[in-house]
Amino acid sequence: MGKLIIRNCEVMTFEGQVPRFVPGQDILIEGNQITAIQPTAALAPSDYQIIDAAGMLAVPGMVNTHAHVPMVLFRNAGPDVNENDWFNKVIFPLEANLTPEDVYWGAMLGLAEMIAAGITCVADHYFEMDMVAQAVEKAGTRANLGWAVFGHQGYAQLDETIRFVEHWQGKADGRITTWLAPHSPYLCDPDFLTRCAKEAARLGVGNHIHVAETVGQITLSLERYGKTPVQILADTGLLDQPAILAHCLYPSDADLDLLVGREVGIAQAPKTYLAMAMGLADLPKYLEKGIAVGLATDGVVSSSTLDLFEQMRLTALTQKNKAMDAEVLPVNTVLDLAFQGGARVLRQPRLGNLKAGNLADVVLLRQDRPAAQPVINKEANLVYSMDARDVDTVICDGELIYRGRKHLTLDVDEILREVNSRLPRLLNKDLSRKIADYPG
Amino acid sequence: MGKLIIRNCEVMTFEGQVPRFVPGQDILIEGNQITAIQPTAALAPSDYQIIDAAGMLAVPGMVNTHAHVPMVLFRNAGPDVNENDWFNKVIFPLEANLTPEDVYWGAMLGLAEMIAAGITCVADHYFEMDMVAQAVEKAGTRANLGWAVFGHQGYAQLDETIRFVEHWQGKADGRITTWLAPHSPYLCDPDFLTRCAKEAARLGVGNHIHVAETVGQITLSLERYGKTPVQILADTGLLDQPAILAHCLYPSDADLDLLVGREVGIAQAPKTYLAMAMGLADLPKYLEKGIAVGLATDGVVSSSTLDLFEQMRLTALTQKNKAMDAEVLPVNTVLDLAFQGGARVLRQPRLGNLKAGNLADVVLLRQDRPAAQPVINKEANLVYSMDARDVDTVICDGELIYRGRKHLTLDVDEILREVNSRLPRLLNKDLSRKIADYPG
Repeated sequence: MGKLIIRNCEVMTFEGQVPRFVPGQDILIEGNQITAIQPTAALAPSDYQIIDAAGMLAVPGMVNTHAHVPMVLFRNAGPDVNENDWFNKVIFPLEANLTPEDVYWGAMLGLAEMIAAGITCVADHYFEMDMVAQAVEKAGTRANLGWAVFGHQGYAQLDETIRFVEHWQGKADGRITTWLAPHSPYLCDPDFLTRCAKEAARLGVGNHIHVAETVGQITLSLERYGKTPVQILADTGLLDQPAILAHCLYPSDADLDLLVGREVGIAQAPKTYLAMAMGLADLPKYLEKGIAVGLATDGVVSSSTLDLFEQMRLTALTQKNKAMDAEVLPVNTVLDLAFQGGARVLRQPRLGNLKAGNLADVVLLRQDRPAAQPVINKEANLVYSMDARDVDTVICDGELIYRGRKHLTLDVDEILREVNSRLPRLLNKDLSRKIADYPG
Repeated sequence: MGKLIIRNCEVMTFEGQVPRFVPGQDILIEGNQITAIQPTAALAPSDYQIIDAAGMLAVPGMVNTHAHVPMVLFRNAGPDVNENDWFNKVIFPLEANLTPEDVYWGAMLGLAEMIAAGITCVADHYFEMDMVAQAVEKAGTRANLGWAVFGHQGYAQLDETIRFVEHWQGKADGRITTWLAPHSPYLCDPDFLTRCAKEAARLGVGNHIHVAETVGQITLSLERYGKTPVQILADTGLLDQPAILAHCLYPSDADLDLLVGREVGIAQAPKTYLAMAMGLADLPKYLEKGIAVGLATDGVVSSSTLDLFEQMRLTALTQKNKAMDAEVLPVNTVLDLAFQGGARVLRQPRLGNLKAGNLADVVLLRQDRPAAQPVINKEANLVYSMDARDVDTVICDGELIYRGRKHLTLDVDEILREVNSRLPRLLNKDLSRKIADYPG
């Protein structure tokens, strides 16, 4: 069993929902868990590997609550387009080109990007997820994986995704968990969602689903079913198991009340919402009701980067703008949401905070860039001035996977060669071949 | 006279307002200007210093159209506060502590941050500007400097700022230009502004001024003077000379028409507007009327970073959100605004584009981070995925000032020591000592 000491760092740790910054600390790790955080000792136990972290800030590994990681293969393929064109003219035709091997190399590239940005856990929602699972196993990160399925693909395809759940649950020394992933109430009908809810209950897992992303989707749902998208999720039993609701920008007040007290969390990726002009969620209201909210990167065909520092900053900035009040979402709330919020959404109580007994997912940040100096308000510095470029070292499940800004588990040159060699074929777009139709 | 070849780079160059990306180019520099951009030659002239730029993207040095650089000393001193408190409880009391030497070291820190972010020219609006001029001279960058003056300080103080203009105009081998800098129509009365306009005309310089930042300021101006802030600038003659209008978020249509055809540009710093919940400008309207618009960092007590990549991305994202249309401000327009727009606002036709005859302000960007790969749409990659961390090399006025992410003109360790040693005194805040009163 590996033993590590992160020596003489400053630690951000939460007391309840309030971040505290404690200088001069050692973080002791045994196996995959943090065993102690204590003032830096003159003598360290001799059987520990020592990581000198003087001057560094230790924060929890970030939890990405909703992504489509292999979409990095199509990064920036369709900028400046609205939702309907984005689905029907950009991403659904491009995705028809993907082979399982493409998905593997896309996942590898996305994992390299996320590790370098301090993300140690991702809830990924995509296709060919056995390939993504293999990439996660290799990268050494943590993941909640869901094999996306559309209603039009039928129950046989749902059964395939169930077999994926059964096969990969708890694999990679427990770093991988698996959930079901029906695409959305606009591309899965209520009967299909009812079946997903029942299967999740039987398997003891959750569902990861897109919902209520645009005003247009609410209108469509009311026309089709006489119900809001969130009401459909409730009525099909999908909210009786754990669930990640991706985006959920337009719930009614009644919809929000349906979420209260359930094991349900909302994933927020404001960079996508801005880029695609979808509008923004009223987050203070969600938080007031005690609904779990976490940050997400979404896929990079809309968000362009897999970077939760960027999403954190955008969350803070855009919520103030939306409310026209600079006091909305103060830095403490933003940090709680960015770090502990993600763990809440994924139902992973041992993530999101650095304390004894929690899983050893730790990120060390340099604090010496001119742009991060001087340090007057540590919370504001972390939200508004520092960013993913300050990530120096990443530990996941007690293992060093990134050190001095170098990957230890992934060969970036090989990944870039593989991805770029596939690009001409992947970008050969035929609008008559689409994996689904967006009903916009 | 120095001779440089930037060897085998990809060059972003504008044809009119459209960016083009041309691979395999050499950029030849003699003295302070670009003499040629041509396909990479097998043999380079022997008397040139060669900078190997294989794999790099060359872009123009960025022009920061409005900043208060030495404010880095107070970075993040007052997060989560609205405008009135920000002025009266945070920045105006803190600024009462500043000595000229503080301003020098603040400018040095801010210049280090800007160079590392690819900013080679800044229109700075602050106090003790002879100290900022000395810092610019040492850093090797370009600047348009204005010594800020409030109406309540009186004409004797205005005369001091005029002496600064006269003394520093064209210094540092022409890298420094100087303008007048009355603070704003809310803190300078019309008579004072009339005097600034006349003095600027006499000196052959422009004015750099804050205007129409909030809805409250428009209301106040109409109550006080029966005129909008922009109308006041026009009536006092301030728009008859070149002018930088900082922020100008709430001009009326009639106000905008007053700006058309003048040597007047608008500086945009959306990160400040979001952080302080000021709302956002209707930029497509400004651009439609042909008004020059450039990007700005503003000061870091509101914007937290001196980073125009961040402001560029926020401009694109937030304008789409404001218009609720993802097709608004497409990537080509954003790049024109970010690079050429700044040069237009500063009335510097030899900046903002890489072409023979222009001044040799060049930034080399690495393109090999996983987060910037693969490259499918170069324009979108530059706006939405790459950022200041990709800056590898900076050349200003034909001189190398940053190479392989290391400063060649500034000693960052010394700067951080100086800044941090001053911090306790600088943060000792006494609300009864303020440099001005914000009439919010």
